[in-house]
Amino acid sequence: MTYSILFEPTGNRLLCEESITIYEAARLAGLNLNSECGGKATCGKCRVRVAGNDLSAPTKSEIGCFSADQLANDWRLACCTIATNDVTVYIPTTSLIEEQVIQVDGVLDNLDPSQGVQLFSLKVPRPSLDDQLPDLERLTRVLNREHSIECVRANLPAIRSLSEALRAGDWRINVALRKDELVAAYPGPPLTPIGLAVDVGTSKLACYLVDLRNGQTLATKGVSNPQIAYGEDVMSRLSAVMIDQVNASKMQGEVIEAINSIADELCESQGLSQTDLLELCLVGNTAMHHILSGLPIHPLAVLPFVPALNLPLNVPASQLGLIAAPGARSYLPGPLAGFIGSDHSAFLLAADFGNSTQTRLGIDIGTNTEITLQIGNRIVSCSTASGPAFEGAHIRHGMRAAHGAIERIEIDEAGKIKFDVIGGGSPRGICGSGILDSIAELRSADIINGRGRFIVDKPGVVSRPNLHPYFELIPKVDGNREIIISQEDIDQVLLAKGAIRAGIDILLNSLDVSPHEINEVVIAGAFGTNLDAHNAVQIGLLPRIPINRIRAVGNAAGAGARMMLVSEEARLHAIDLAKKIEYIELTVSPDFNKYFANAVRLPAPLLT
Amino acid sequence: MTYSILFEPTGNRLLCEESITIYEAARLAGLNLNSECGGKATCGKCRVRVAGNDLSAPTKSEIGCFSADQLANDWRLACCTIATNDVTVYIPTTSLIEEQVIQVDGVLDNLDPSQGVQLFSLKVPRPSLDDQLPDLERLTRVLNREHSIECVRANLPAIRSLSEALRAGDWRINVALRKDELVAAYPGPPLTPIGLAVDVGTSKLACYLVDLRNGQTLATKGVSNPQIAYGEDVMSRLSAVMIDQVNASKMQGEVIEAINSIADELCESQGLSQTDLLELCLVGNTAMHHILSGLPIHPLAVLPFVPALNLPLNVPASQLGLIAAPGARSYLPGPLAGFIGSDHSAFLLAADFGNSTQTRLGIDIGTNTEITLQIGNRIVSCSTASGPAFEGAHIRHGMRAAHGAIERIEIDEAGKIKFDVIGGGSPRGICGSGILDSIAELRSADIINGRGRFIVDKPGVVSRPNLHPYFELIPKVDGNREIIISQEDIDQVLLAKGAIRAGIDILLNSLDVSPHEINEVVIAGAFGTNLDAHNAVQIGLLPRIPINRIRAVGNAAGAGARMMLVSEEARLHAIDLAKKIEYIELTVSPDFNKYFANAVRLPAPLLT
Repeated sequence: MTYSILFEPTGNRLLCEESITIYEAARLAGLNLNSECGGKATCGKCRVRVAGNDLSAPTKSEIGCFSADQLANDWRLACCTIATNDVTVYIPTTSLIEEQVIQVDGVLDNLDPSQGVQLFSLKVPRPSLDDQLPDLERLTRVLNREHSIECVRANLPAIRSLSEALRAGDWRINVALRKDELVAAYPGPPLTPIGLAVDVGTSKLACYLVDLRNGQTLATKGVSNPQIAYGEDVMSRLSAVMIDQVNASKMQGEVIEAINSIADELCESQGLSQTDLLELCLVGNTAMHHILSGLPIHPLAVLPFVPALNLPLNVPASQLGLIAAPGARSYLPGPLAGFIGSDHSAFLLAADFGNSTQTRLGIDIGTNTEITLQIGNRIVSCSTASGPAFEGAHIRHGMRAAHGAIERIEIDEAGKIKFDVIGGGSPRGICGSGILDSIAELRSADIINGRGRFIVDKPGVVSRPNLHPYFELIPKVDGNREIIISQEDIDQVLLAKGAIRAGIDILLNSLDVSPHEINEVVIAGAFGTNLDAHNAVQIGLLPRIPINRIRAVGNAAGAGARMMLVSEEARLHAIDLAKKIEYIELTVSPDFNKYFANAVRLPAPLLT
Repeated sequence: MTYSILFEPTGNRLLCEESITIYEAARLAGLNLNSECGGKATCGKCRVRVAGNDLSAPTKSEIGCFSADQLANDWRLACCTIATNDVTVYIPTTSLIEEQVIQVDGVLDNLDPSQGVQLFSLKVPRPSLDDQLPDLERLTRVLNREHSIECVRANLPAIRSLSEALRAGDWRINVALRKDELVAAYPGPPLTPIGLAVDVGTSKLACYLVDLRNGQTLATKGVSNPQIAYGEDVMSRLSAVMIDQVNASKMQGEVIEAINSIADELCESQGLSQTDLLELCLVGNTAMHHILSGLPIHPLAVLPFVPALNLPLNVPASQLGLIAAPGARSYLPGPLAGFIGSDHSAFLLAADFGNSTQTRLGIDIGTNTEITLQIGNRIVSCSTASGPAFEGAHIRHGMRAAHGAIERIEIDEAGKIKFDVIGGGSPRGICGSGILDSIAELRSADIINGRGRFIVDKPGVVSRPNLHPYFELIPKVDGNREIIISQEDIDQVLLAKGAIRAGIDILLNSLDVSPHEINEVVIAGAFGTNLDAHNAVQIGLLPRIPINRIRAVGNAAGAGARMMLVSEEARLHAIDLAKKIEYIELTVSPDFNKYFANAVRLPAPLLT
């Protein structure tokens, strides 16, 4: 019997015909699990989470290695566990040797350094019986004299640390202020004022450590969102809460813990401490925003999909469980709608929507794809459930844009296949841009038809009785991993691109814009960066526009978060932008099905 | 051997010559401990805390009744424990049948109802796919239309409760707002907006449940401050922290728990819940303020006695551990100095200092006595360590102003003693005003001289070899409890009155005011309410001024706290007042000893 092991959050998949350990399966699927003993059940490092009845019972080693609680929560050692049927295995970041390459750099660094939080280095005169002024007023007197700051508001946790800092630093301190409010006090010589910007994505968390004086990124890191264990897309996360309310606080706790852990690492990389973080800004889609903030999920999960609020939250970092300076605040821009989050408004801010007078289309492709069209003063947005195909999930040999992923494919006129692998070396799978390329190339080479069906007598198409035909991208020779494109893969991609294209067409139609009027298409996210614009038009993901008008901007949501972290002006601009945006709910659009049916087809190959 | 058992927080004391249980000792000292079994070690109700080596070992009943933790923390059953030497026994409020009569009513109810928090009852239209406005903005739309409120700021804990309240109340809700910020949302029909004012005293907590619309007090309750177990005065509380830092958070936890428990009871008495509390205001001396807020104690405890701040704190109630509405805030007015707290500024606010142009003296008598003198635009304050004698502590048969306390004493010309007992019945001890009266009367009757020494041949004076002479106030006849005034009692009172009078004289001298220029003396606190003004002048506690200028105002600090609870204007007025006050540190006043030596003597009896 053939069964499949899907590894999350990497998206790697392995088809098995014989019983092998999950550790071995991961290796064959191209993943290197942590291990010191090489799979001999002694080091306890290859920890994964896997559930189901088709698994070997926990061994003695595993029982010795995990608490009862962990065992009940499906923790296993990969080297001790054998699956006998289809399973999904969740690999925590700590169990992976090779970290995923995750897109964390936006290209837009147009940051305005008019930050809200400032750090001052001061010498404060010590008190005496003739000068018994309290510590805070003593500090204020110096601030007033040296920096013309009138008064200091009392932030309790920050003030709790002031007295000790004054005395520990022998009355020489750094004080961080947000306008007239004390954020933190540190003893000793001058420090760098730092903050953290976070893009909380459904599948990944991207964190940026930023110098608040100039918006410069000091260090960055991206990891998988640990909530993936509760489902890979937004709807499955919301469902997990609907099934059991306690999952909301569990997911909240896990994402906060992950952010704290990255923040710790980033600060340490700069010789700083997490308690030096003076300000945070977090963006994300509406579900991530609500889970992160502990806002009620139910109204968001059911018709008519109502968020709790669309105002920004500006709350003590500690209220969310984030570790930072005692008086540090977390700024969470408001969601735009039930399915358009603050990550999209951060993207629009970074990509200068609202300011520009050009006609522009902004697309952030993910499991959920947000699309915004601007013409003149009007800005219209929608959100479409495109599924994870472009992120390499639900694709036979799909994977995220990580080391070993085929990101670019070309089939030349002789039928010869050329490809590029991220990080070089032998390919482990195909990521979104590679999948998009394959389909464009297969269509150009006339190997698939307009409905995406294989034409069975074409070269590379494998057609066996009782099996759907598939295309052999890399044959299994010389111990190579076989990589194929299945009919189901093509169907998944067509559904995804159909959903996105229908959204684009509905927006264009609603504002009466023709594709040739679009001055610029801005595509955000890892997928966009590797995207072959020509092929995106070729398969009809984008309307027919000159490809030099298509621009990839990387993680623009992260760039927008960094802007709002350091700049009050950027925050106000994002609020204004959000107010301007008109939202179209596609689930109630009477035309959606018509547009979708049209958009799901592959257009005739373009002449190049 | 004679030994003494001191009961705290009531201050009752018993001298024992034979070994009796603490339960029995309490009864003889006039305290009724909780008990269902009458001292037979079966009900486990007579719980007390008592430590030391001179105690019987814990019995089986006690080991069965307490956890190991409780035993380690000196919990005992009074009926099982026998002391063989001097001990102090702490009685938790729950183990006392009769609660103390504690002064909670101020006489000043001049409250301005321009409160900051308002409660609105609204009907909100339900959302649909055509109207997906988020919950908060949906609410704002109605508030804007019906009450012209422009926007609602996002208070995260309050907003977390909004979505559920809207749906639970079928879109009919009460929303509490502080200006434009959501404080709470409650489903259903209109509610009463309530708040809590608290006077956190060193020895007692007085709580007032207040209707925020009109400042009306709905219910009040006073209990002992549970921190008494760490020492009865401010300095011993501070010392407890200096000895072990962990005592700071323990004391914080205990006072918060006590306030929560009273708040719960007060709310329940009105058919309301603690989570209905929309706003809190807490006043107290500087040490209580710092312990309550978790501010650092060390700089306050050592020279030069520097508080952390003197600005008001306006913090989420939850940040202090106080149970209230999700967005409720606690307002803590700033201390005036290291030993003059916000309870004194609350008193001055309630007693209309600052506004009045009269020359006035304000005195809040306690273990620490705060004194303020106003003339014209100048207001000068000082604080003096008067000790607890006027609260009945450190007095042989002293007790607080509770049921059974002698509060008024008269010795007529024939030498016959008349007295009034609080609550009637037979006397259990003497409270502060009774002690003051005794000394005035003893001096008038020429039974003591100007230095407070007994004149041994006078009637009532008992003089035995090797014993200090004492005055027999109530002889031990007919099973009555004997009540005496000892030489040590008189010394304690003279030290207390000397400290207070020295403070008054230093203030008068510093502003060049003669006693006859004082238009009014305002005395706050329980002691003041029962005070015989004539006797206060008679013993020289107050300068010689006409007694019709002396006014008792009860717990004016509580009245001031209620004013600041409901009125923004009162808060601003208190801040202005605090800014005006000049502080004199008596510990460094070169004249203090001279004034004190003079003030400690008893003046010649006045003719009445």
